Amino acid sequence: MSIVVVGSVAFDTVETPYGKVEDALGGAATYFSVAASYFCPVKVVAVVGDDFDDEHIELLERHGVETSGIERAAGKTFRWGGEYSLNLNERTTTFTHLNVFETFNPKLPESFRQTPFVFLANIDPELQMSVLEQVEDPELVACDTMNFWIEGKADRLEELLQEVDVLVINDDEARQLSGSYNLVEAATKIRDMGPSALVIKRGEHGALAFFGEEMFSAPGFPLEKVADPTGAGDSFAGGFFGYLARSEEQGAAALRRAVVAGSVMASFCVEEFSLGGLMDLAEERIAHRYRAFQLLTDFGDL
Amino acid sequence: MSIVVVGSVAFDTVETPYGKVEDALGGAATYFSVAASYFCPVKVVAVVGDDFDDEHIELLERHGVETSGIERAAGKTFRWGGEYSLNLNERTTTFTHLNVFETFNPKLPESFRQTPFVFLANIDPELQMSVLEQVEDPELVACDTMNFWIEGKADRLEELLQEVDVLVINDDEARQLSGSYNLVEAATKIRDMGPSALVIKRGEHGALAFFGEEMFSAPGFPLEKVADPTGAGDSFAGGFFGYLARSEEQGAAALRRAVVAGSVMASFCVEEFSLGGLMDLAEERIAHRYRAFQLLTDFGDL
Repeated sequence: MSIVVVGSVAFDTVETPYGKVEDALGGAATYFSVAASYFCPVKVVAVVGDDFDDEHIELLERHGVETSGIERAAGKTFRWGGEYSLNLNERTTTFTHLNVFETFNPKLPESFRQTPFVFLANIDPELQMSVLEQVEDPELVACDTMNFWIEGKADRLEELLQEVDVLVINDDEARQLSGSYNLVEAATKIRDMGPSALVIKRGEHGALAFFGEEMFSAPGFPLEKVADPTGAGDSFAGGFFGYLARSEEQGAAALRRAVVAGSVMASFCVEEFSLGGLMDLAEERIAHRYRAFQLLTDFGDL
Repeated sequence: MSIVVVGSVAFDTVETPYGKVEDALGGAATYFSVAASYFCPVKVVAVVGDDFDDEHIELLERHGVETSGIERAAGKTFRWGGEYSLNLNERTTTFTHLNVFETFNPKLPESFRQTPFVFLANIDPELQMSVLEQVEDPELVACDTMNFWIEGKADRLEELLQEVDVLVINDDEARQLSGSYNLVEAATKIRDMGPSALVIKRGEHGALAFFGEEMFSAPGFPLEKVADPTGAGDSFAGGFFGYLARSEEQGAAALRRAVVAGSVMASFCVEEFSLGGLMDLAEERIAHRYRAFQLLTDFGDL
């Protein structure tokens, strides 16, 4: 099964205590696509400027990402800059230049319109809805969002959530969207808005998922080296949704394994700057890290 | 197998967004003892004042805690006051009155001196060492500590750690003790100081343990109601060490289950004020919550 994803493709300038990159390939759709590509075919819908080199397109295609949905517009590619604190837990945005992204009006190539799995990465909920309407009868729809849309486009977001099966957001966003600090209470309120499943990303503390009558918790992997947390949440979403698309079923057991697959991809992402940690991963490395999560969490009967 | 524990028995005045208690029974040794009592016999070494009612002694004894090591001194029992923020993640100490605790010089009753399991709760490392020296050839020694001793009695703490098998501290303490923000790096440094095993408590985010070549992570249980986090870490330690004392072995598999047993007791603790959540728990409730942790974390092969 394949996925269509819409979201940002960007150039990031990032500084962490472990180094700095300038105009490195980034953006939610990029991280998502590469992470998901290890599990299933991915088609990406995005916009870039005339400064977007072919090498980046080749990088995506090398990972099996279909790039014909990346529109080239006159102007510059979306650029974002951020700095992380010493403990990597706090991030300051140093600049956001939307550039060609400002007038983005996503149009799906004809060949994308029957894709069964749809992931709407964090963009304006109106654009997310527009993409969703261009897909014929999707099997599973997931989305991300952020504080900016929760505050500024609450009505549009609410309409979108009614059409979404799985919402993948972080803990602050879950609290803001629900108005509840307690995550169990927040999950109940959010699932009443539409999504049957909710996955809450908690950064280094892992992920907490709610589906059916069940809860599932996966830890963040305790790493000796964390170079750059940028893209971890999008890599998580890519591994999570990619695993679901590859699975034959989307029941509780598959959702649990998908959360771990997402955690595996997030753990690779943060070990290097930009997309470095996600590049050309051998299947055995992914299986090995998944097994490391099993060893990390396994315990027997009382 | 039985445990001897030394630490504070106190009266706590606590305010959280969900209510307030005044002069409620508390203290690290109290929470530890009651939590551990569900797994094995516990002997407590502590000091209280002449304001300590028999009803509290009876409460401990009802839970199978041997109280002959609780010294009664002239004066008032240790009192502590604290207030929690709306999200329960920040705590302000409003007062600390050491009272009879100030001149505490723990002396073990003769019948305590051959106890195989020793837990040194958070007190002055000199007192922890004095208690340890009074136990003949213990089988397993664990201890807790805090920022005050890490800063103020580093040398004494260092001597103590050389005699300790398992250190149970929170993430801030692990970072301060090791000088490393990264917990994997911190664990390596701390285990070089003596303890073969390290358990790092992370509050609502659970616990992370290091032993042998292994790491183990247990989540905090996502609860709908958290009334009062006071004593959660000591209840964790009680469940953890109590489980180990009950087990026939202290290998990796037992340590993993012990961390979950600790997490179970901490989850009960925070649901009520003071010791309310730990009172008179039926064995089936503990087994049921343990099973809930299994359901929360269980996932299959990739």
